[in-house]
Amino acid sequence: MPGEFDIIARHFAPLAEGAPLAFGLKDDAALFVPAKGRALVLTADAIVEGVHFLPDDPPDMIARKLLRVNLSDLAAKGATPRAYLMTCAFPRDVNDRWIAAFARGLKADQKRFGLSLLGGDTVATPGPATFGVTMFGDVPGKGMLRRSGARPGDILCVTGTIGDGHLGLTEILSPHPGLAPAQRSFLSARYRLPQPRTRLGPALRGIATAALDVSDGLVQDVGHLAEQSGLRAVIDLQAVPLSPAARVLARTDPNLPNRLAGAGDDYEIAFTIPLKRLAALKNAARAARTPVTIIGHVEKGQGVAVRLPDGAFAEPAAGGYDHFAR
Amino acid sequence: MPGEFDIIARHFAPLAEGAPLAFGLKDDAALFVPAKGRALVLTADAIVEGVHFLPDDPPDMIARKLLRVNLSDLAAKGATPRAYLMTCAFPRDVNDRWIAAFARGLKADQKRFGLSLLGGDTVATPGPATFGVTMFGDVPGKGMLRRSGARPGDILCVTGTIGDGHLGLTEILSPHPGLAPAQRSFLSARYRLPQPRTRLGPALRGIATAALDVSDGLVQDVGHLAEQSGLRAVIDLQAVPLSPAARVLARTDPNLPNRLAGAGDDYEIAFTIPLKRLAALKNAARAARTPVTIIGHVEKGQGVAVRLPDGAFAEPAAGGYDHFAR
Repeated sequence: MPGEFDIIARHFAPLAEGAPLAFGLKDDAALFVPAKGRALVLTADAIVEGVHFLPDDPPDMIARKLLRVNLSDLAAKGATPRAYLMTCAFPRDVNDRWIAAFARGLKADQKRFGLSLLGGDTVATPGPATFGVTMFGDVPGKGMLRRSGARPGDILCVTGTIGDGHLGLTEILSPHPGLAPAQRSFLSARYRLPQPRTRLGPALRGIATAALDVSDGLVQDVGHLAEQSGLRAVIDLQAVPLSPAARVLARTDPNLPNRLAGAGDDYEIAFTIPLKRLAALKNAARAARTPVTIIGHVEKGQGVAVRLPDGAFAEPAAGGYDHFAR
Repeated sequence: MPGEFDIIARHFAPLAEGAPLAFGLKDDAALFVPAKGRALVLTADAIVEGVHFLPDDPPDMIARKLLRVNLSDLAAKGATPRAYLMTCAFPRDVNDRWIAAFARGLKADQKRFGLSLLGGDTVATPGPATFGVTMFGDVPGKGMLRRSGARPGDILCVTGTIGDGHLGLTEILSPHPGLAPAQRSFLSARYRLPQPRTRLGPALRGIATAALDVSDGLVQDVGHLAEQSGLRAVIDLQAVPLSPAARVLARTDPNLPNRLAGAGDDYEIAFTIPLKRLAALKNAARAARTPVTIIGHVEKGQGVAVRLPDGAFAEPAAGGYDHFAR
């Protein structure tokens, strides 16, 4: 069993090499010099073995997902990611290979998303492996996209496809017999490795009036946007984008789209724009190579309504994702 | 059992009221606008029930210690504390009163040390309660105190007294019969509630050549300072400051001072200064009402040596504090 200082020196210090002011993780703290005229955007997420990831998930995938759930928050706020700090509570029987693979995953996504490790803490736990990441990025001025800026008449959009993460988890736990192997691995990859919309996010500044990360279920998250904006959101269920794999499953399960709109683990961005900025959005989406779909609008009122294909309003599927209520 | 959003809204959102750009913890992220000409100093610590605190420790004390171990890192770097983010993994059977008391502890020390909560994450765990805090402060320019700046001939100093935290833990687990009640509660309070040297820390900028937080054992931590500075540190064991309670125990246990110099949980600052700045240090210590003691010096060479009262050099007591090696 490796020691704390040994873990840091061998596995984590190399992850700080891109940030000279992290001092190789050999000091009590790191320095960060903010770029002139930019404000920091700060977010934090924690994941627990057996709750947010499975004990036999590949360690590099756990690490990458840990970074990506935070990257998704920054992207939804229009921020450019910069650096992170990480606390790791490892079970005492963790082995060096596991940690090495975990660090490789961090390294891969640091490179991909332009991040550096600035510091953290490594401790032992008698319980499940538990990781916390505080990540920060920056925006010019105070230009963070908020949940609260939507205006009546704005159209409601979402990136990518909805429900794949949830279906991917189901796929890992009990494979869908009706799916082709490529579709099954597509879904499990969507669960294990979300694609944070970091290319589109910063481009939404100046276009979107409100935005948020979709991670607790589309309906619940859009509900937060509506609530913070003091408006009512209407989601057209038929317009909610599903992947080809999800559409195959929906053929034999007509209620699936409504359930997927209430499931979690999407890590897409939901946002509102005034209709007049639609052309600007299309250009931004094309430049970022990020699919965007119009799924509804916001209007005066409150709450979130899901409109079914026949025009009737569905009761939203129960409650989204609450870690304590499951 | 309260839900995640409920915990945040009732217990944690009020802790963000002092930071309007935390948006009441109702957005995906918080904004922080750095003060002009100042760099951020960032640090993170994690604590686990049964490892870093005891299951029946008062929740407000756990919370305050969580903040204070981070505050101690910032103080040792000469930084002024500003804000923190916190990840909480609560056991599913946590009750509302426990969380309320925990939040009261955070609130008390936020006020005392000028901190705001900027964000975080609250999840459930099947294991022990686990908390991670990322805290940041700032310094003018890039003026963070480093471990690496000591110069040959500098004198070595430490704040406060050494070993009380360790004795306090022992006191809680099995009371010392030889101590008066006031001394016993002094020691247990020193374990439960460290006093981060936030008043002196920023004043050490421009005086100290190197500094670090003493939390893993004085000898081990001074060893880090020596190593990072490329020097040898010599600690005069007789000069290491002990509290009256520790001195009572040392009377019947002559090896105690050496053991305390290797114990952890002090949360004092060890630092080096050139002799010519001694007067400036005395003034700063007086202004900050913080006791400071000269305990040795640094010189050419490497490693850390502990000089006994008879002039011989002791082997340092085994290895300091390593969470994985215990």
